[in-house]
Amino acid sequence: MGKKIGILGGGQLARMSAYQAYKLGFEIAILEKKYNSPAGMLTKNDFEGWVEDEEQLLKFAGDCDVITLENEFIDSAYLKKLEDIGKVVIPSSKTISKIQDKFIQKSVFSKAGLQVPKFIELGESHSYEEVAEQLGERFVIKSRKFGYDGYGNALVSDEVTYKNGIEKLSDRHAFLMAEEFIDFTEELAIMVVKTQNEIKTYPLVKTIQKNHICHTVIASANIDIKLQKEAEEIAGRALSAIDGFGLYGIEFFRKKDDTLLINEIAPRPHNTGHYTIEGCKTSQFENHIRAVLNLPLGYTSLNKQFAVMVNLLGKRTGSGVPQNYNEVLKYDDAHFHIYGKAEDKKGRKMGHVTLVGDDLDELIEKANKIENEIDL
Amino acid sequence: MGKKIGILGGGQLARMSAYQAYKLGFEIAILEKKYNSPAGMLTKNDFEGWVEDEEQLLKFAGDCDVITLENEFIDSAYLKKLEDIGKVVIPSSKTISKIQDKFIQKSVFSKAGLQVPKFIELGESHSYEEVAEQLGERFVIKSRKFGYDGYGNALVSDEVTYKNGIEKLSDRHAFLMAEEFIDFTEELAIMVVKTQNEIKTYPLVKTIQKNHICHTVIASANIDIKLQKEAEEIAGRALSAIDGFGLYGIEFFRKKDDTLLINEIAPRPHNTGHYTIEGCKTSQFENHIRAVLNLPLGYTSLNKQFAVMVNLLGKRTGSGVPQNYNEVLKYDDAHFHIYGKAEDKKGRKMGHVTLVGDDLDELIEKANKIENEIDL
Repeated sequence: MGKKIGILGGGQLARMSAYQAYKLGFEIAILEKKYNSPAGMLTKNDFEGWVEDEEQLLKFAGDCDVITLENEFIDSAYLKKLEDIGKVVIPSSKTISKIQDKFIQKSVFSKAGLQVPKFIELGESHSYEEVAEQLGERFVIKSRKFGYDGYGNALVSDEVTYKNGIEKLSDRHAFLMAEEFIDFTEELAIMVVKTQNEIKTYPLVKTIQKNHICHTVIASANIDIKLQKEAEEIAGRALSAIDGFGLYGIEFFRKKDDTLLINEIAPRPHNTGHYTIEGCKTSQFENHIRAVLNLPLGYTSLNKQFAVMVNLLGKRTGSGVPQNYNEVLKYDDAHFHIYGKAEDKKGRKMGHVTLVGDDLDELIEKANKIENEIDL
Repeated sequence: MGKKIGILGGGQLARMSAYQAYKLGFEIAILEKKYNSPAGMLTKNDFEGWVEDEEQLLKFAGDCDVITLENEFIDSAYLKKLEDIGKVVIPSSKTISKIQDKFIQKSVFSKAGLQVPKFIELGESHSYEEVAEQLGERFVIKSRKFGYDGYGNALVSDEVTYKNGIEKLSDRHAFLMAEEFIDFTEELAIMVVKTQNEIKTYPLVKTIQKNHICHTVIASANIDIKLQKEAEEIAGRALSAIDGFGLYGIEFFRKKDDTLLINEIAPRPHNTGHYTIEGCKTSQFENHIRAVLNLPLGYTSLNKQFAVMVNLLGKRTGSGVPQNYNEVLKYDDAHFHIYGKAEDKKGRKMGHVTLVGDDLDELIEKANKIENEIDL
């Protein structure tokens, strides 16, 4: 049989990775808190539990040839445990230990000479004034760990918002940091994939957030080739700085003067790379699978001039499958991806839709129309 | 949860259909003689057994919303049994009863005014001379049922080959037919998909066989638009003649005078349609899934000017996964599909590779190079 790839986590990223693992003839195993997760339902190697449950963790790891993950909220100590019993883990515990804590992540990048927003560690004794002196009147406080989609962030502009922010975030997680507020012109992102032998980047894309959640991704960002080259160079240096192998998504702030600051790195398939499934010759998921097995990487450039991806967020409770497929599938050039989540919830990522073509305005309009009309 | 699609059969066609079912948020169930078949491994709804085992058949059918199949060698009586307990079966037992027996299939098409090679029923008493008088000196004898990839066919040109052919095929299956030998210029094929509301066809493709097995598919066939239109029209009439809903592959002989004769119809995803996965906006597998649920169909035209698919047939025994992925994956614009079969066997369909682009010669050359080099 083909090699077996263990994935820590069974959500949509693991699910879309699983399709590609199978396509190449490999097998998968899933560890997730609940049985029959979106990815778990695709295999009989479906282990219920989480990394703290050593018995399940080792059972899951069992005959896996390599272990990877779909979120970075796994303490690197658990990955180390797997490495210690001889498992290949990609991204490695070392890499995760350098990026899991956002304060450490920014410090690592900063030391490597990469540009990031100004940032400081936030102790309990810091007053608004003290922080504002270093970062300016407006700044962002962040949980150092476990933040995603805006959870774990608070924008601060005075003593009141500062106090509220600290309270909100301290509730959630103990360790905080503060970051300069960047008055960016755009948010950009790039996927990069690296093996022992090669490194490849995808096109630089534009991302549009709504309520701190990725809403639209436009590939390519269609900007100066110099900026694409710069993003590629930063991506390469960032991966060196964290000893990174496998697939990574890097989010940037683009400043008015065209400087690119690294906002964040994710050591896994990334929402800003979903467009690659139909948009590029080799999807981020396939290159993810190839990379964790240290196989040659596939071609990463766009099939057409543009690909536009829009997230389909839950608008209601109930079924995780669109109730009006008969209407929305009529957009017969749209690519629908529904994640098979057991339950819908407002704001939950339930699926996404991608359109590929040469007329950007048309693609964006149609994608938004679908998002608007879909009963999901 | 999403609707559940039951597939009779767990080979590569079911496997590639399963990917697309999941992509749209649906679930699958598989009935196959062996547990953990290429498609069975993708689900926990994996039923070991076959249609004769009524208990397993009903367990499999259980809560399926629709049942489909990946080969036409299932006696229509079993499909009728499922219909009788209220299951939607696509293709229906009625359709299968019209095409399963090739003699009946040809009779149905012929009665509908569609052109097929001359054919006759073959009784035991027929002599070579008698048949040759009707069909010409060279003709083909065929098993009326269960033939595939050249198994169940014998080319006859005199009394000796006739006697040998009859013996060979009678061994295999009781009922035989004979068909005029067509001196075709090319073999062409088309995929067609139909719901209660619409019908869509894919491009007419050229197929090249080696040892009676599909070897290369070239999409599009790049021939006169008149021939494409004619093939589309024939496809529509053929589906009407068999009350066909769902996805069908139709193989044609193209004669010197550009007549298209129907060679065969397959009521399911077809090897000549694999190129659609990357070659077309909506793959045959996705439209198969949409059609069995009577959902709107996706766009069927080509993404680039050409797509070339080459089958990867087993060259050896042993692992069903390429042993030299490190070499062949270096062709970084090729799309590899490995079917996850437990064991390799000489001549067995183990996977396929597809290349998409505008330079046909280059695509064919590269696909053949890969087929040649791959250790599978």
